[in-house]
Amino acid sequence: MRENLSTQTLGRLPLYLRLLKEKQNDAVEYVSSSALANELGLVEIQVRKDLAAVSSGGRPKVGYRVSELVRDVEYALGYDNTYDAVLVGAGNLGRALLSYGGFQAYGLNIVAAFDADDAVVGETVNGKQILPVHMLQDLCKRLQIHIGIITTPAECAQSVCDKLVESGVIAVWNFAPAHLAVPAGILVKSENMAASLAQLSRHLRDAMK
Amino acid sequence: MRENLSTQTLGRLPLYLRLLKEKQNDAVEYVSSSALANELGLVEIQVRKDLAAVSSGGRPKVGYRVSELVRDVEYALGYDNTYDAVLVGAGNLGRALLSYGGFQAYGLNIVAAFDADDAVVGETVNGKQILPVHMLQDLCKRLQIHIGIITTPAECAQSVCDKLVESGVIAVWNFAPAHLAVPAGILVKSENMAASLAQLSRHLRDAMK
Repeated sequence: MRENLSTQTLGRLPLYLRLLKEKQNDAVEYVSSSALANELGLVEIQVRKDLAAVSSGGRPKVGYRVSELVRDVEYALGYDNTYDAVLVGAGNLGRALLSYGGFQAYGLNIVAAFDADDAVVGETVNGKQILPVHMLQDLCKRLQIHIGIITTPAECAQSVCDKLVESGVIAVWNFAPAHLAVPAGILVKSENMAASLAQLSRHLRDAMK
Repeated sequence: MRENLSTQTLGRLPLYLRLLKEKQNDAVEYVSSSALANELGLVEIQVRKDLAAVSSGGRPKVGYRVSELVRDVEYALGYDNTYDAVLVGAGNLGRALLSYGGFQAYGLNIVAAFDADDAVVGETVNGKQILPVHMLQDLCKRLQIHIGIITTPAECAQSVCDKLVESGVIAVWNFAPAHLAVPAGILVKSENMAASLAQLSRHLRDAMK
């Protein structure tokens, strides 16, 4: 089992996992790469490669034991553990992410949100309290939080990121349209929705010329 | 002015635009690449290249006229027009995006949402009505919608995408964890949040070994 999975493979693993869990619910015991490929509309050789990269349990003619493959895919995805995270910036996007119930399925649990604006501090969104940002570092250290989600305006993102890293955060999910500088060993994963929108708009304009 | 901008350049343009608009508000008339670089914490040569790629208005010693540069950056980003879009799939993520007020600033206006579940049809989220999915194609054609946002479960994403494309959509913003096959000329921009989360979790696990 190799440790370095491509972004493409990582992107397909949730597809396999969803289907495998359905099979588990239907009490299916074994599954082949070709069956998965068929049901997901993927090329079989690709599925075979992806699964071989995360599991050593495949056997010729028989395929994979579903329960083992679920475990291996979850391990590869890092979903075998649930990680607690904090979110900083309870504006529109921050609230949207707090309201989104789907992260838990992927092993992410947002325990608290922070904001610099006293007007929103004290509110509760989807059961999560919005706390004043001066409590951020203390709470992260106390609860040993290692994931921070940044949904602040671009101009505050770096200082929030610095605070998170100082408090023990080692993985930053950044939704602010800002480049973040971090020390070695810290991973920043940025979602640049503005850049995506720009690509879509440019395509439209070019297509409608 | 070149037409093919790198994803990196497109990602930085919103940063410039935000700062330029602040300057416009402050009645600043001219701005130099080095001033922008300083204020944004970017490398000057990078800023100079980015701006040269989108505007021909830069003059030695003087810099760019702020109003012209705003116009050129907006054009490059495709923000000069507002595009109407529909969203399909009013679950957690769909509702989060409907509630998010920030897209309008980037030229995207979600006019309606659709869902297959009768239980949610008729609800209103952030002033946008959730309509039954059987009305999707008719509405897209009638309002000449060219952008579709897919926030359905993975298993419905392709059929929704097909319906959108049949109805005249040429740019698809896909949040479902599914690969979408589209005809030539149609752009699909996928946000794979599951893959991002997987990368963050794997990093955490590796870091804490």
